[in-house]
Amino acid sequence: MTTDLEDLAVRLRAFARARDWEQFHTPKNLAMALAGEVGELVAEFQWLTAEESADPDPDALARMRTELGDVTLYLVRLADVLGVDLLAAATDKLADNERRYDAGRYRGSARKAPP
Amino acid sequence: MTTDLEDLAVRLRAFARARDWEQFHTPKNLAMALAGEVGELVAEFQWLTAEESADPDPDALARMRTELGDVTLYLVRLADVLGVDLLAAATDKLADNERRYDAGRYRGSARKAPP
Amino acid sequence: MTTDLEDLAVRLRAFARARDWEQFHTPKNLAMALAGEVGELVAEFQWLTAEESADPDPDALARMRTELGDVTLYLVRLADVLGVDLLAAATDKLADNERRYDAGRYRGSARKAPP
Amino acid sequence: MTTDLEDLAVRLRAFARARDWEQFHTPKNLAMALAGEVGELVAEFQWLTAEESADPDPDALARMRTELGDVTLYLVRLADVLGVDLLAAATDKLADNERRYDAGRYRGSARKAPP
Repeated sequence: MTTDLEDLAVRLRAFARARDWEQFHTPKNLAMALAGEVGELVAEFQWLTAEESADPDPDALARMRTELGDVTLYLVRLADVLGVDLLAAATDKLADNERRYDAGRYRGSARKAPP
Repeated sequence: MTTDLEDLAVRLRAFARARDWEQFHTPKNLAMALAGEVGELVAEFQWLTAEESADPDPDALARMRTELGDVTLYLVRLADVLGVDLLAAATDKLADNERRYDAGRYRGSARKAPP
Repeated sequence: MTTDLEDLAVRLRAFARARDWEQFHTPKNLAMALAGEVGELVAEFQWLTAEESADPDPDALARMRTELGDVTLYLVRLADVLGVDLLAAATDKLADNERRYDAGRYRGSARKAPP
Repeated sequence: MTTDLEDLAVRLRAFARARDWEQFHTPKNLAMALAGEVGELVAEFQWLTAEESADPDPDALARMRTELGDVTLYLVRLADVLGVDLLAAATDKLADNERRYDAGRYRGSARKAPP
């Protein structure tokens, strides 16, 4: 069985409904919850060197994975209550970036390095 | 054609490689970039009431969608450089939450309202 | 005895030096730590209504105060290692805002509401 | 003339009142605005190495200073509407950290490096 973002959104809807938490899941509140989780994720990296961050020990990697999961859950839920297709939004933005950051002109420049 | 998270990760790898930006894409840097984008997303909601956030005007919704796209791009890229399967991490975390927050006991309580 | 921001900066320098933590206190790392603490602060407000946030119960207020303390410590430390005078930077920015947001023209408008 | 945090809080109150923006300045909204500004601050550091972050070029330093000013304004305003004394909260938290992180035991350890 594969799970995709749409499956996840559906399951999150059921999760909120079963607990009567839909009342708390306004986009405003979910954006705050997302920011809180990203804060926890960033905290995992704050004292690591660049090199250490690229090769975390198993415990640190497990914590990063958990935080990445939390961030994903809130991101999917926020997009769902707003009616935004996350993959389409990301794909559109990436297409924009591909146009804007000409590979030759921006090569190796840290001035602007979008994903 | 459908795009999924794996397709997006592959396309982001090519995007970074073509611009020689892999050198900047350490997990530490990408976590910071993600935090920056989430800051922009949160800013879209900061002066809205809960009700306004649930029914944004078309311009505001378009900006929210763009920011959601940016957040998704960095999240997918960060997970990719760490070798983390984002959907599996999210699914595992949701399963944890389903166990931890018993639907009967936490019903309607804002004390803890994970997604 | 009154403590001001300069006293706090001096005390934080001694705190870091005594633990040989100056090596970790690069501006980049401190900016991440600040983001992490702001994430914890935001999390205190995420499920509260606007009204509840303005009248938190004593336990919640105590947690908010602790998080505000953490945020202030990292902000003061970050400004100190960068050699930035925080009060002067804030005062300059406020003067900018006073000029930019004419009181008559922006009266009651949420379009732009800087502090 | 010296400005301190209390002066700044008083001036921010007048700024909000003159524009009828007090209605937007709930603790919840101000916490979000703070998170947004910290996101902008973090973004200034995201592609810099640790070394570059400690020795930014004049333009980058000027942008960092502006963002530090913005963060300070929202932090002071948030503490003010909550009735929290920011310096006392920070001093209490630093005293906690001094007790908790024994200088001998935590010397040079990145495991925990609070400010």
